[in-house]
This record gives sequence, C-alpha cells and structure tokens, in this order.
Amino acid sequence: MPPIISTAVLLWSCPDKKGLVSRLANFIYEHGGNILDLDEHVDGSEQTFFFRVAWDMAEFSIPRAAMVEAFLPLANEYQAHYTIRLNTEKRRLAIFVSKYGHCLQEILWRNELGEFDAELSLIISNHPDLAYLAERYSIPFHLVPVTKENRAEQETVQLALLESAQIDTIILARYMQVLSNRFVERYTHRIVNIHHSFLPAFAGGNPYKQAHDRGVKIVGATSHYVTDVLDEGPIIEQEIIRISHKDSLDDLIRKGRDLERLVLARGIRLHLQDRVLVHGRKTVVFD
Amino acid sequence: MPPIISTAVLLWSCPDKKGLVSRLANFIYEHGGNILDLDEHVDGSEQTFFFRVAWDMAEFSIPRAAMVEAFLPLANEYQAHYTIRLNTEKRRLAIFVSKYGHCLQEILWRNELGEFDAELSLIISNHPDLAYLAERYSIPFHLVPVTKENRAEQETVQLALLESAQIDTIILARYMQVLSNRFVERYTHRIVNIHHSFLPAFAGGNPYKQAHDRGVKIVGATSHYVTDVLDEGPIIEQEIIRISHKDSLDDLIRKGRDLERLVLARGIRLHLQDRVLVHGRKTVVFD
Amino acid sequence: MPPIISTAVLLWSCPDKKGLVSRLANFIYEHGGNILDLDEHVDGSEQTFFFRVAWDMAEFSIPRAAMVEAFLPLANEYQAHYTIRLNTEKRRLAIFVSKYGHCLQEILWRNELGEFDAELSLIISNHPDLAYLAERYSIPFHLVPVTKENRAEQETVQLALLESAQIDTIILARYMQVLSNRFVERYTHRIVNIHHSFLPAFAGGNPYKQAHDRGVKIVGATSHYVTDVLDEGPIIEQEIIRISHKDSLDDLIRKGRDLERLVLARGIRLHLQDRVLVHGRKTVVFD
Amino acid sequence: MPPIISTAVLLWSCPDKKGLVSRLANFIYEHGGNILDLDEHVDGSEQTFFFRVAWDMAEFSIPRAAMVEAFLPLANEYQAHYTIRLNTEKRRLAIFVSKYGHCLQEILWRNELGEFDAELSLIISNHPDLAYLAERYSIPFHLVPVTKENRAEQETVQLALLESAQIDTIILARYMQVLSNRFVERYTHRIVNIHHSFLPAFAGGNPYKQAHDRGVKIVGATSHYVTDVLDEGPIIEQEIIRISHKDSLDDLIRKGRDLERLVLARGIRLHLQDRVLVHGRKTVVFD
Repeated sequence: MPPIISTAVLLWSCPDKKGLVSRLANFIYEHGGNILDLDEHVDGSEQTFFFRVAWDMAEFSIPRAAMVEAFLPLANEYQAHYTIRLNTEKRRLAIFVSKYGHCLQEILWRNELGEFDAELSLIISNHPDLAYLAERYSIPFHLVPVTKENRAEQETVQLALLESAQIDTIILARYMQVLSNRFVERYTHRIVNIHHSFLPAFAGGNPYKQAHDRGVKIVGATSHYVTDVLDEGPIIEQEIIRISHKDSLDDLIRKGRDLERLVLARGIRLHLQDRVLVHGRKTVVFD
Repeated sequence: MPPIISTAVLLWSCPDKKGLVSRLANFIYEHGGNILDLDEHVDGSEQTFFFRVAWDMAEFSIPRAAMVEAFLPLANEYQAHYTIRLNTEKRRLAIFVSKYGHCLQEILWRNELGEFDAELSLIISNHPDLAYLAERYSIPFHLVPVTKENRAEQETVQLALLESAQIDTIILARYMQVLSNRFVERYTHRIVNIHHSFLPAFAGGNPYKQAHDRGVKIVGATSHYVTDVLDEGPIIEQEIIRISHKDSLDDLIRKGRDLERLVLARGIRLHLQDRVLVHGRKTVVFD
Repeated sequence: MPPIISTAVLLWSCPDKKGLVSRLANFIYEHGGNILDLDEHVDGSEQTFFFRVAWDMAEFSIPRAAMVEAFLPLANEYQAHYTIRLNTEKRRLAIFVSKYGHCLQEILWRNELGEFDAELSLIISNHPDLAYLAERYSIPFHLVPVTKENRAEQETVQLALLESAQIDTIILARYMQVLSNRFVERYTHRIVNIHHSFLPAFAGGNPYKQAHDRGVKIVGATSHYVTDVLDEGPIIEQEIIRISHKDSLDDLIRKGRDLERLVLARGIRLHLQDRVLVHGRKTVVFD
Repeated sequence: MPPIISTAVLLWSCPDKKGLVSRLANFIYEHGGNILDLDEHVDGSEQTFFFRVAWDMAEFSIPRAAMVEAFLPLANEYQAHYTIRLNTEKRRLAIFVSKYGHCLQEILWRNELGEFDAELSLIISNHPDLAYLAERYSIPFHLVPVTKENRAEQETVQLALLESAQIDTIILARYMQVLSNRFVERYTHRIVNIHHSFLPAFAGGNPYKQAHDRGVKIVGATSHYVTDVLDEGPIIEQEIIRISHKDSLDDLIRKGRDLERLVLARGIRLHLQDRVLVHGRKTVVFD
C-alpha cells in the first residue's frame, strides 16, 4: 500500500478578471503546494470565472484549520464563492429510497469497491422493502413512512436523522417522494437525484410510459441537483440508450435500469470529487 | 455491372390474426416469388400486425400492373392497409430549404453517391441563398418567397410545382416555414422533416438556444414525418452527441449540423427503402 | 399474475432455397401455432438461410415430446440444423469465476430480478475470494483450485460437477483460466466469455494495459462464444466507452468494469433467449 | 462583424516540476496577457507536464516577433519543448487524395463554412478522379501519379509543391499510398491520416473486409499522426458505429464513410486549434 497522499481541492467562482489564474496558482505555489490538477472555465456570455485546483498537501505551509480563512482576502478582493476540501475528509452520505432497489444496489456495490471514497452513513426509506439490502451491506436503515397527512412530521424525523449523522450529501436513489424546501435549503446543491428520462423530455411521472407512447428511438436518464422546482435542477450527467418499436414498456424499464444506475453513479462520483460547480440552473463539470 | 435484380416490397398492416405470416409468405411463394427479406412486428398492446417483405421478381408470375389488385382479396379479408413498390420505380423527391445549406449539401452529396436510389427532382426555397448549390449539382431550383401575406398563394405555386414534377416525397431540409394542411393531406407520411433537437425536448424555435440555456449534457436531432401538429409527427430516427459547459451556443450549432445531416439522411434512406410503417403517432422501422 | 404463456422457439439454419419461410411458417400454422415473432436472414455471400420463429403453444397440436421429430422431415429435405426450446424449460447455468467479482455480482443481481429466466445452478472458482457473494445469493459454490500440475484432474472434477447439475450453459465471468477442448467440445457454442477489450484489438492478457499504452480514445468489451482458439470465438455483443489522456490505467479498469458487466449480461440474455445463431466464426443475432 | 480578437496559444511540455503552472501563468499575466483558456496534464507514470494556454493579445506587451525568444529562458530552465501560434496566423493545408472523394468533400465543405480557420492551399492526387471537386471549390489540384518505379521522383515533385506553397500541415484524406520518411521527417506530427478502422484492430489493408469477416458488432475510424510505422502513429480521435449481421460489406463501407468524414474532420480541427500534444506514441488532447 502506498502512503495516502493528502490532496486539497479548491472550487472557486467569481466575476471574471484579468490575472485570476496567476493569482490563485501563485498563492498555492508560494505556500508550498504542488499543483496536481487545474481546470478553469470562463462563461462567455456572463463573464463568470470557474476554477478547480487540486494540490499536494505534503509541503503546504498553511494548516488545515487555517485554510479557509487564508483564502478569504483573495475571495473578498474578487467577490468569490469558494469551498476547500481535503481528500482525507470523507463526505458522509445518506441514501433515500422507496421500493426500486437497482440504484441502491449499484451504490452499495460501488461503495464496497471504493469507487466513491465516501462514508455511506445511512439509508432512509418510506417502505420496508429494501431493508434486506441495507442489512446485506451493514448500513443503518431507517424506515420513515411518509403519507400526505404526516409529511411535515416525518420530514422532521428525517432531518433529525441527517443532522445526527452529520450527513453532507443526500442521494435520491429512485425515492418516490418530493422533498420539501426544508431539505433544499439545508442541503443546497448537495442533494443528487436520478430522473429516469433525458430531461427536459418527459419530466414528471412515468417517463418510460411517456417515452413509449411518444415513440422515441432513444431513451435517457439524468442525474441532477434537486432545487425547489421539480425536475428543473442543474444537470450533472446524462446518458442514453437506443430503443426500437420492438421494445415494450417493460423492456424500456429494464433497459432504463442500466442507464439509471450508471448515470446516478457517475453523478455521485463527480459530486464527491468536487468536480461540479453550479451556475444558475446549469453546471460546470470539470471531469 | 451485375444485372439489376428487380425486387418488390410489400408493406402491410392490419389487426393481428393467426396465420398471417403463413398466408402472406405462401401467396408470394405460390406465385414464384423468392423471399429475400421478411420482417414482422405485432404491437402488443393494440394487437396490430406490421409486415414488410421483399421478394425477387425474376420468376414472379403476377405482372406489375396487376400486383396491387392481386393482393386485394387478402387485404380485404384481413382489413389491411398495404403498399407495393418495385426497387426499379425510383421515387421522385422535392427538397424544401431556406438559408442553411448543410442538410441540402448532404442530401445532394449522398444522392450523387447513389445512397438514396431516388430521383432528386427539384428544390424549392423561400430564399435565393442556396441556388448555387442546386446549380452545382444540376437540380432545378425554384424560388418561391413566402410571406405572411402571400402564404396561401405561394403554397398553390409550390403544390403546382410538386404536382407537375410528379413528386412522391417531400424533404424539409431545415425549411424555416410551417407547411399548411394542404401539404400534409396531399403527402400524408411522405413529408420528412429534420428537427434540430432530441424531440420531445426543445420543440419549437431555437432548440440549440433552449438546450444551451438548460445546460443539458447531450443534444440531439430528430427526423420525423410531418403531421398537422408542429414537431409532433411520428419519429423515424434520432441521434445524439455529448456536449459540455465548454460548448458555446455556436459550438452547439456547429456540432448539431453533423447530427442533423446524419439523422435526416438516415430518415430519408429508411423512408425510401419502404422500411417505415406509421402507427398512430409512432413508427415501426424495419432496419 | 397473468397465466404463463408457453412459447416455443425454433432456431434453424440451412442452405438457402426458395420457399423456406413459407414452408416453415405453414408447418407451424397448420399445427395450430400462432406465430409471435419471426426473423430470417440470408447470408449474401454464402447463401445460408438463418431463421428464428417463436409461436404460442396454447393450441399447437404436436406435443412437446414429439416436436423435435416432427420437424425432422423438413430438416432432412433442406439439410438444416435446428433446435427447439420452450420458454418454460429453464436453462441451467454454471458461472466460472476467479477473483474479480463485478461480473458475478451483476449476473446474480440480474438473475434475482428475473432478467435471465434461467436456473443459476452453481458457481465454480479456482479461488475462495467470491464465496461470500455466492452465499449472499444462496448459490452453491465449488472451489476447484487449478494449477499447471493438476489442471487435467481438476477439469475432470469441474466436468463432473457440470454433468451432475445438468448444466446447459457455462458463463466465464472473468475466469482467469483457459478451458481445455474437453469443455469446448462438450458445450459447443454454450460457453459465453467476456473479454475486456474491443476484440480483435488487444486480445490476450492485460488488455487495459495494452489500450493505455497504445493511447486509444475508446475502450471496449466483447462477449463471445469460446472456441479452441483463444479470443477468436464468434462475437455476440460489444460495447465501448470513450476515454482520454486523463484516464490512468486504474481509471480504464474502473470504467471497463461497467462495460464488462453490461456486455456480458447482454450476451447471456441473447444466448438464453435463443437469439444467437453461430455461422463459422461469426454470429447472427436476432435481437 | 465583431473585431477579430487576436489570441495566442502556447503548447508546452517538459519534465514535471513544482510551480510550473504558477510560473507560466505569471509570465503571461506580467506581460499584460489575459488568460482565456488553460489546460494542464501531468502524466502520472512518466512525470511529464503538458500545458496549453490561450491568452488575449490586446494588451500583451511582447511583440509577435519577439515572443518565441521571450519564452526561451523559461523553456531552458525547465527543459521544455514549446510552440506559439496566433489565431490570426492561418495554417496552410495540403490535402492528399486518391479516388475516394467523401473525406475531401467533407473537408472542402467544412472549410467553406469556416470550421477549420485555415488556408486550404492545394490538393495533390495520384489520380485525376477528384479534380472536379477541387475545381468546384476553386482549390489548386495537382496530379502526381505515383507508381512503384517513379515513387522517389514523384515524392520530390510533391515535396517541392508543398515547399513552394509553404504548407504547414498535410491531410491524408484516404490517400492510398504510403508516404516515405522524407515526409514524416519534414512534417513531423503535422501529417494527419484517417484510417478506416478502430485501430489497432484491423490495421493494414481492407479493414472493412477484415471487420466483416471477423463478425464484429461495431466498426470504427481513427485519425492519427503519421509516423514511420504504418497505422502506428499517435491517435488523435476515434469514433464507432454499431453494425449487425444484416450489414453487407457494402453497408460497412457506406456506414464507414460517415465515420471517416467525422473522425478526420474532428482530428483536423483539434490539430489546427493546437489542442494536440504528442507524447511518444500517444497524444494529450485538450478539447
């Protein structure tokens, strides 16, 4: 086993201005950081600057506890939003599910293989059906049945579970309920959903049925951040598969499962590696 | 040059009933036809039977002039719709264009290579911009400028041009006008349009702008039959391409041109080879 | 639950001759079979006829026990090879694995979902590593460690296991040993392997390493039947994924896992649904 | 028309060392250059640093004539290879063709649309067949018939044509001859070829025939730099298309044309935009 190299990632966005890359690269270099990876993008129409840089912490002179503050003067100067994270600080995940297990199964399996480099802390469901999967992988499973009547109370229960487990990111793995704004506000751009269509086509319910009825020749899946407007959040990743008149609705659902698993897994990985910057209703994805 | 083998294609749809394949295959066999290719599909939910069969005419005992009538008793028995065409009977095409030349260029080029096996008879445009392309390939070009005021009259001119050239199929190669029902009724399921999005996403105007604003990670193009509802006709073919935040609107337009050319060409070829059966707002494509 | 409809599938190949479709369709129709699905293909260069037909057994007048014999006179007349199988006769599968679990995991999961419609009877491995997965899904696991020295004896053990479990089809799910001809002869065109490259590129060992060294922009995976020549068997299915200079060898291995799982699963499904006909070193796949 | 913004592009590779990004970004910033786009990549196994940066020349204080020299001290310090080009300095292209016109047609068409931002200076062919296309687009066409006997002399003629037209980059658009080392040495990593297979599969002659015989389910095309080993040069771009048993060799050739056109065009564009760095037999493509 090689020694684990500690790496820092800075995600940064601000109005574009001359010298930004130079200033930021210099700041890291001057404090002993060796830049491992750097990506930048300037949105042409709005002149916004997006930046991701990863550097080796081995000889970096600023201690972790002081890092956020250390970048503050630069951030103030450029009116920037920024986050800093070390790869050794594993994010804590909560998975929300209902009855379909394929996305959960995929996440559990990839997590077991170490593809996500995160702490899968708990699973919350409104149905007991998938408890067996949670048990198989020894992840705490919380049954929180939500009805029209008890929704507000049960959300309070869910939020308390998230809080007490210090959850950083929520994954909606075919969770068949809409989360209220209490979640969206608390976990802004930290709730990743999978929608089983090529958004914005077939938003809303039963997208495979809609696709089958319309006779499209290709179906898709979309992973996106959840916002307060259903199926309108910033898109992280999409993928498609070709279908034909031979495919029944059941075939679409079966083929779609493969897409959903893949697109959700890719979206989660990109998010967890701090490769996604949100820009209005769009994303910049540094992959 | 090998001698041209004359091939007949029967396209057939009717309510499903036992023995249909056997009856149709037998009929052809008994009259000396050697079946070269056969496809069938039964729509599960509506129990409709779709059928395409191609056979060698070399020893077929029914002369061309009597063929349609020869199938009539069977068609009546099964309440079928059917068409028969010989590959030696080239379809006559009209292309409608406005100012964007890429789809027209692609059609002219593929036609020159013999990919379409049709007679490209005339080009109609509401702008003079692409006359040079028509001239380059020696195809008659008719300028028919359409305005809000003169639309009905100019459509009469267009319809007369189509009639006098005995046009079978109309291709809308980025024609920026909506054809009225006079065309749709006269050329039902014989007008092929290219829409520069992955329908039903981004129907209507400026689909690349819509896609750019929404921040999708994939864009598409769709070839479909024109019906009386805009962008709602039965889809023949779709294809997609991956994009990213780096792609400006101009990049989308540039990348989209490649898609449009390909998807329209495929749609035309499938139509011309009698591989498309329309079923409500959907298609059965025997490729 | 709807009543299970019993369906028969005939796979047939013979030298091409006029009237084949008609004769075969008629034979089924005359004995009360309602054709549900029919595909045919004539290989142009060698004039070989390939045929797959599925029919409803509800009113078919020939009992199962007599069906093979019933088609014999036709088969003799046309010098045909043919097989008949009912969908109610589940095939019995053996999975061979070594240390990589992703393909096995995928098969177990899809089998649990009912995608394969087969009996997953046993798992054979030369390493104990994946016994836990077999246990998780309650499939018998047999450890048969193979070395250079004991290979012939251990193959005898393996063949006895297969025989006693009445195995019909063997799946090599990243089994890192070459099976001898004793297997290939006994299970001709019934051993499905996954090779982790886009064959014929990067045959042999370490295909991801080879791909990484060559600097290709796309990697692939291939499911194929095993023959006596390594990585040269008839290809059932292939799929690819785009890569870039950013992808390390580990990234290729990670991305490749997704491909391998998908391509093997598709290959197994096509085989189990009797959709694959072998033709020399090629396949006809009626999907 | 907006005023043309002059942009400089620096391509740089050297052994990796701490502070490289900072030093290079600073150098540009200190001389008044506004960085528009920056990409870097460190090859993990060999510790080589690859860098591409584009900056606005509007306020850059070093005149064009002195720019190469200005970067020399830095380059010496880091043992770097580097090139600098302004977007206003259009590259001069020569296209080599034989009898197949589809790739030439595509280049001419895209060039007309302004996709390449280069000067298409001349076409050289060993056959007269495509002279009509050159004439259509008013590009000088030189017929230089090459035989086994006259190859060395005719290459001298070709090289003189290239020299006198100050050609920067050669495109082999299905040129059916192998260029000798005299070309490879003179235009190292400036000769772009299209090979009509998914390399390294089906290198050499008749790749579609090879693919058809092998029964692959996917075919591809590859654009690459020409080196002294046939079909072994660094790959710039690849793309694939799905095929089936229904596709005859002619179908493969027809479908392959679409791939070849696309993959060659993408390869040319990437090369012309200075987005490709060669690294041994591999490329780093900053797209």
